[in-house]
Amino acid sequence: MINPEMLKLGTERCYIRELAEYGAQQAKIVGREHVYDFSIGNPSVPAPQAVKEAFLHLIDEVDALAVHSYTAAPGMVEARAAVAEDLNRRYGTDLRAENFFFTYGASAALTAVIRALAVPGAELLAMAPYFPEYRPFAENNGMKFVVVPAEETFQIPLQALEERITPHTQAVLVNSPNNPSGVVYSRSSLESLAGLLEKKSREIGHPIYIIADEPYRELVYDGTEVPFIPTIYPNTVVCYSYSKSLSLPGERIGYFCVPDQAQDSRELWDAAAGAARAMGHICAPSLQQRVVALCAGCRPDLESYDRSRMALYTALTAYGYECIKPTGAFYMFVKAPEGDGRAFSDRAKAKNLLVAPGEDFGCPAYFRVSTCVDTDMIRRSLPVFRALMDEA
Amino acid sequence: MINPEMLKLGTERCYIRELAEYGAQQAKIVGREHVYDFSIGNPSVPAPQAVKEAFLHLIDEVDALAVHSYTAAPGMVEARAAVAEDLNRRYGTDLRAENFFFTYGASAALTAVIRALAVPGAELLAMAPYFPEYRPFAENNGMKFVVVPAEETFQIPLQALEERITPHTQAVLVNSPNNPSGVVYSRSSLESLAGLLEKKSREIGHPIYIIADEPYRELVYDGTEVPFIPTIYPNTVVCYSYSKSLSLPGERIGYFCVPDQAQDSRELWDAAAGAARAMGHICAPSLQQRVVALCAGCRPDLESYDRSRMALYTALTAYGYECIKPTGAFYMFVKAPEGDGRAFSDRAKAKNLLVAPGEDFGCPAYFRVSTCVDTDMIRRSLPVFRALMDEA
Repeated sequence: MINPEMLKLGTERCYIRELAEYGAQQAKIVGREHVYDFSIGNPSVPAPQAVKEAFLHLIDEVDALAVHSYTAAPGMVEARAAVAEDLNRRYGTDLRAENFFFTYGASAALTAVIRALAVPGAELLAMAPYFPEYRPFAENNGMKFVVVPAEETFQIPLQALEERITPHTQAVLVNSPNNPSGVVYSRSSLESLAGLLEKKSREIGHPIYIIADEPYRELVYDGTEVPFIPTIYPNTVVCYSYSKSLSLPGERIGYFCVPDQAQDSRELWDAAAGAARAMGHICAPSLQQRVVALCAGCRPDLESYDRSRMALYTALTAYGYECIKPTGAFYMFVKAPEGDGRAFSDRAKAKNLLVAPGEDFGCPAYFRVSTCVDTDMIRRSLPVFRALMDEA
Repeated sequence: MINPEMLKLGTERCYIRELAEYGAQQAKIVGREHVYDFSIGNPSVPAPQAVKEAFLHLIDEVDALAVHSYTAAPGMVEARAAVAEDLNRRYGTDLRAENFFFTYGASAALTAVIRALAVPGAELLAMAPYFPEYRPFAENNGMKFVVVPAEETFQIPLQALEERITPHTQAVLVNSPNNPSGVVYSRSSLESLAGLLEKKSREIGHPIYIIADEPYRELVYDGTEVPFIPTIYPNTVVCYSYSKSLSLPGERIGYFCVPDQAQDSRELWDAAAGAARAMGHICAPSLQQRVVALCAGCRPDLESYDRSRMALYTALTAYGYECIKPTGAFYMFVKAPEGDGRAFSDRAKAKNLLVAPGEDFGCPAYFRVSTCVDTDMIRRSLPVFRALMDEA
């Protein structure tokens, strides 16, 4: 008498996590220096000093009853206002505290928004390559998950997307900078997407929302622009996490934001708040909310991410690997020389080099390399990458 | 095209929260000293000093990358083991880290367990008086919510419960020490309940679980015993929160625990883990997990809660109010002199004395008084309580 879908979700093997565990095991056998783990996307840069100081200030100098108390379900007004102000300053928007709802990170924001849009038959579109958890988030919160095959450059596959829009399409997931490709959607791509969605929304008689999943918004290189999607397409809900931008992945602090300009803005915000309530949301961690209030303008130190990205990109392409140059996040998505990402991942594993096969991201010919790793491990891994190409 | 149930959940007025907001408004008009707010159950005792020291140690002395990193989805093994050890020491159990799954507080634990048990037609029994959020947690996660009317002394209404068990009954919620009554279920009551559930489980051919919601486990007075329910009834899942015991309500840290002795223990744990994943759970806040690992044996300072409890109980019963003496939590549940808790709450509100009407707790003739308030406010409020009785 146990729910079989939940049991399946709870027992499914996660290949990427198993790779990382295998790596930890192998390190004990062959030595840490002979294992090259590029499997998981954990920030490798510590939280900014200002974040540490904010924590210390809150714990040491502020009344404990106040610091640890329940906040309103959507979060402290001061914290939400601080985030609104930071975005307004950067993007010329007119967001207010009331547009925001703090959640347990971007995942909880996504599930709340998905459930808010889950009407009978509802469909959610995701463009490959995509973050694998999108599928269970959609399928277990009342939406059909529809994959749009990738475009060669991992930009927006506009025609394939158009072909998959139906009267049931409620939203399109947009994840830029992208996990796993590291690609940032250009302003012109996003404008084309906006044009398409406006046209199709009119045709089907209801808005198709963009759900912008933006945990990597601040992780961008070479001066690449990351357009703020609500300024291009008003029917956009933003889901955000401080996991990467403040290097607080375990602390579970993020938000959803429904701008006033979105159609049925208040109803959508309310329904997502209701969905969060249904899932047991009381408030996002109060200490973390207060840190965000103090550090909303902090930016991550990108230098070491950039160095790792360039070291790997330069070497791998020199060895003959094909890869779109990543300009954001901390991943690169590489075509397997044998055209099969799982086969490559298995070959690599045999040499204690761990990369995630692309199948779970919707692109079976590719593998993902997490570049948020130390540069010394990169240096040691390069002969292995070269050998894997030579043997292909 | 927005989910109407979620919209309803997100826009529903919460009378208790509105009372508290009214109180804050009135305080600005008539002065804080003329408002007597007994509406909300926020801890009024700060977190123990050891908790503060644990936070400072973790932030100041431990590597930031490690402290704030993702943990495994169920939580850090060290933290789970520390909790298991503390319970084993107190209750003679043989719990292991593997029985625990850290969640965003007890609410997220409850929704995960409910969803794990949500098979078609599933029913969840709750005995009045009960925490109002149980209803949306059940109804929005696939279970029918079945109320068992209260027994006079707010102990377990055994016969009424038996009458409501059907082949669809999957679980009974047990909340002891109880919100709102402050009653602790006695060992003999729980043994009778266990006997009944064993008998009925055999009859219907599958286990009826107890979901023990225990955020107030450590808040108990007069040396009252709080039996650990898994030691009485093996098919018990424990949902716990550190909101009250460590005075960290906003920090969202708690767990569910499925002991090995429970039928289908591993499957139930896995399904609840799957349900958490479906709702966007990644890991409970890592800093808070680490604090629990260091402070699993800390107990709250009960002296001021006890003082407030006795001051209110003694005065109100002297004025003629009828109330079961609370021996746990920080509430008392009082019979309205006019037999209508909402009418009493309205009369009280007109005098700026705020108490929660009992209807949302399943007992419309009662009102709830939160006793976790400062003793000075209690002293000032007593003439108002007296006048409300005299005018009834």
